[in-house]
Amino acid sequence: MRDVQICEVGPRDGLQLVRQVMPTQTKREWIEALARCGFGEIDATSFVPPQAFPQFADAAELVQTARAVSAQWRVGALVPNAKGAERAISAGAQMLYCIVSASHSHSMANTRRTREEQAEIVGAIVAQAKQQAKAPHVMGGIPTAFGCSLEGRVAERDVCQVAEALARRGVDEIGLADTVGYADPRLVRSLVKAVRSAVGPEMPIRLHFHDTMGLGLANVLAGLEAGVTSFDAACGGLGGCPFAPGASGNIATEDLVFMLEQMGLRTGIDLEHLLAATEILAAALPEERIRSHVREAGLPKVYGVAA
Amino acid sequence: MRDVQICEVGPRDGLQLVRQVMPTQTKREWIEALARCGFGEIDATSFVPPQAFPQFADAAELVQTARAVSAQWRVGALVPNAKGAERAISAGAQMLYCIVSASHSHSMANTRRTREEQAEIVGAIVAQAKQQAKAPHVMGGIPTAFGCSLEGRVAERDVCQVAEALARRGVDEIGLADTVGYADPRLVRSLVKAVRSAVGPEMPIRLHFHDTMGLGLANVLAGLEAGVTSFDAACGGLGGCPFAPGASGNIATEDLVFMLEQMGLRTGIDLEHLLAATEILAAALPEERIRSHVREAGLPKVYGVAA
Repeated sequence: MRDVQICEVGPRDGLQLVRQVMPTQTKREWIEALARCGFGEIDATSFVPPQAFPQFADAAELVQTARAVSAQWRVGALVPNAKGAERAISAGAQMLYCIVSASHSHSMANTRRTREEQAEIVGAIVAQAKQQAKAPHVMGGIPTAFGCSLEGRVAERDVCQVAEALARRGVDEIGLADTVGYADPRLVRSLVKAVRSAVGPEMPIRLHFHDTMGLGLANVLAGLEAGVTSFDAACGGLGGCPFAPGASGNIATEDLVFMLEQMGLRTGIDLEHLLAATEILAAALPEERIRSHVREAGLPKVYGVAA
Repeated sequence: MRDVQICEVGPRDGLQLVRQVMPTQTKREWIEALARCGFGEIDATSFVPPQAFPQFADAAELVQTARAVSAQWRVGALVPNAKGAERAISAGAQMLYCIVSASHSHSMANTRRTREEQAEIVGAIVAQAKQQAKAPHVMGGIPTAFGCSLEGRVAERDVCQVAEALARRGVDEIGLADTVGYADPRLVRSLVKAVRSAVGPEMPIRLHFHDTMGLGLANVLAGLEAGVTSFDAACGGLGGCPFAPGASGNIATEDLVFMLEQMGLRTGIDLEHLLAATEILAAALPEERIRSHVREAGLPKVYGVAA
């Protein structure tokens, strides 16, 4: 029983900007520790080309690990194209995270394809998924939905057009991603409303915030008020997009869980176990800045619904 | 024309936990830089006993400086007792910030007086203020209104009783302070509603959040939704209460201004000038951690109502 669903994206988005390649064995320990927390979903890795992204060369192994350590969560991975989707499906991924940027410039920088070309690729991935006996869930993510450090403001109309294109191609869910941390609570309310009217009320919407300007949790609150109950977050506040200048970490899962539980909303996540998982990360990446208020301050005397 | 009033509390609350005594000349430069930002109110210092708190030995001088550099803002100061109020009034303070903690333990640790004794003192300060030709505004602050690191949860009933006691003694405004950073958006909504029914809709309510758990700006959003339009914040996110274990910095004024302006709410504050004021602080206190997302990330391409 959860009021809010949190997808842990640390092993995928969290590692995107980390230069030091984390040993596969450490990633496995981290994923095992995350499995103990009670997440309903994890973005376990990214099926980007291993030559260009050595951090994700062990993608198949990590999907297998995540599947093996828990039957309680849906194991997802980013798939940039048909080849990546094929690899992810073979490895046993239950969720394929595909993307079409709202900003043309970010789409070109990130995928070297226009938004239209990228939408075609998502269509092909949906077709691949549907051929499976048990079709993986296809998540259509929209990076730079709340603004772009290359283009500045991104028109709501452009985001809605991308969302419609994704819906038309059969994705199971739309993800609005604030890749560079430009979102504010008013924009969140307004964009969720606009996208919901573009794709219809049946299409689930997920929100993905980066905490660049410190507005991440305020944006989550605005999202909740707009009726969204599904959010991405990364353990230790790690993350960022290598093709979006100035992008910084995701909202920290620890802080998000803390806020929601304090508000009386059930996340299903054990915060003590989560803090233990973050320690694995912190020990493995001593050069990275771990940004989690809860980790730094410790849990207060008053915590959670029962307190 | 402002939609939201922000009181800069850096020179008072911000310096409370700073061990290094900042030279008076540096404080003056900082206050002059803050005067250029457009604040309508500043908490310029604290009239605590100078023997015990050398950081605030120059209180009178700073009130005079703040008065001299701008006629646009109301210059306030914390006054712990009648003696402090006398000194503040002589120096020209236009706002007296008095306190009665919601938590008995915090009241004893901070003032060595019970809440009832402290409320009597506030009554005496109000009487002193009213004797002046131009009576200073008396702000009745309630530390630990959202929880206490000594006692844990603080009952809403206790906060309402303190608020009623302050209102009865004639304060002009009630401030609900989250001294240790335990507030969450649900509690903010609930407590503002409860206090408003206790003291009546005519009494202005101000909110004061610390960002210990990273929920500061989400709490501001909840406060705005509850109808509050007046908030404290400290430049660089400095601050904390020496008698509240675990207390950390205030919400950073830079981040608060950024969020509000992005939402289309006018604060009257020039963020570029504010960032310049923070640099004075950062240079003067190299050992302190300056916590401001906006300072760290820089202003994005998209900023403010006109963007």
